[in-house]
Amino acid sequence: MKQCTLVKIGGQVIDNSDKLKTCLDAFSSIPGKKILIHGGGKSGSDMLKKLGIEVKYIDGRRITNKKTLEVVTQVYAGSVNKKIVAQLQARNISALGLSGCDLNIIQAEKRPSLPMDYGYAGDIKKVHTDKLEWLLSHQVCPVINPITHNGEGQLLNTNADTIAAEVAISLSSIFSINLHYCFEMPGVMMDINNPHSLLNQLTQNQYTEYQESGIIAAGMIPKLSNGFRAVSAGNTHVTIGSLNHFISGDPHTILRP
Amino acid sequence: MKQCTLVKIGGQVIDNSDKLKTCLDAFSSIPGKKILIHGGGKSGSDMLKKLGIEVKYIDGRRITNKKTLEVVTQVYAGSVNKKIVAQLQARNISALGLSGCDLNIIQAEKRPSLPMDYGYAGDIKKVHTDKLEWLLSHQVCPVINPITHNGEGQLLNTNADTIAAEVAISLSSIFSINLHYCFEMPGVMMDINNPHSLLNQLTQNQYTEYQESGIIAAGMIPKLSNGFRAVSAGNTHVTIGSLNHFISGDPHTILRP
Repeated sequence: MKQCTLVKIGGQVIDNSDKLKTCLDAFSSIPGKKILIHGGGKSGSDMLKKLGIEVKYIDGRRITNKKTLEVVTQVYAGSVNKKIVAQLQARNISALGLSGCDLNIIQAEKRPSLPMDYGYAGDIKKVHTDKLEWLLSHQVCPVINPITHNGEGQLLNTNADTIAAEVAISLSSIFSINLHYCFEMPGVMMDINNPHSLLNQLTQNQYTEYQESGIIAAGMIPKLSNGFRAVSAGNTHVTIGSLNHFISGDPHTILRP
Repeated sequence: MKQCTLVKIGGQVIDNSDKLKTCLDAFSSIPGKKILIHGGGKSGSDMLKKLGIEVKYIDGRRITNKKTLEVVTQVYAGSVNKKIVAQLQARNISALGLSGCDLNIIQAEKRPSLPMDYGYAGDIKKVHTDKLEWLLSHQVCPVINPITHNGEGQLLNTNADTIAAEVAISLSSIFSINLHYCFEMPGVMMDINNPHSLLNQLTQNQYTEYQESGIIAAGMIPKLSNGFRAVSAGNTHVTIGSLNHFISGDPHTILRP
């Protein structure tokens, strides 16, 4: 079975142009079919603040009202996505920026407004695997941002960690998948102040245990729960940590069923 | 020779959601291969004003400093492009939003800073016809925005009328092209207050004459000079006016060599 590598990058990389360059150098060196999935970093929130639009989160999830959706679409699908695509083109990667609406790659539905109204938040309904496979088979490198759509003309905002997992799951029917979540730490650590506490492996049972005992911080939960969902779909190797460590085989965390 | 229809829409359509819907309905009804090219409308300038960034023009051309480039990339490649793509998907068009960097469709170079420094303005160097042909042959409808790149990681801002003409010229080697510039008037008029003064045809010689005598307003010049450039490349039928009139054959202006 052919391989496909998915790399998810977030704010720590996107917000720092030196780190972004290093990351894109590493990404470019990955052989074979590959997809980059990115979030928005702080730039979305920064722009909202500049425009005087209140930034609201509940349990780490952004509340996306109409104005917020407009701004995050501008930042994620516009400046962040195109900056990355242009820099990959400069590295001779045939990159193509995609929001969920482009080629109808990712269709979502507005999250129900009860019990909690998250506004224009999109829960993924379908990833159009055939379109991604077509692009990959023509040496195109999709660069996916977290703006999705409902198929009726409405854009929606979806969590980028979730997009990475759903794209991995959908493509795992065709490819053997490597899904790597880039992280500012070397991986999952028992004690963030102790570099020796890195977990080389984390099983689903350990994850549940560490989550209950509060060892795993709240911010890690979306990444890990999405990562384990991808692992349990099968055919998918999921890792967390530095992209360079993933490529070189240096210490990082591998999620195990 | 197969046909391909290119439609350029600008601010009058983009800034008004009802007009945009009517226009996308009309665009969707065009049979065969088609491409939509859009500018940014007033939303780019509005956003710059909200952020307190000065909007500068010289001879109708925007001066694009670094901050301006960031904002126009957000608006043109982000909110405007994705809004159009999502609305075309809702009309069962397999739309794909493209900046020049995506698949390296349009490579440009920064305009020389002498005699006048336009900042990050991009003059088109090459349209990658093969990539556009590939997409069109797979029933994909490219939706192109005016953000280009220099191939070295730098995004640039290019005039959308120019992009429409250059894409038409490049594709005219493969297709018989219809290029339609959408316009708030029925077409080119000798007197904008007199609906009967619409010119059904305009030749290059008449254009030069009317331009010298001041009959043709300054704002029309980029559209017309780009239109005539496309006409003179051959194999290209160029029209200006209402999109519905173009489709139904009702009065509009045809540019003649």
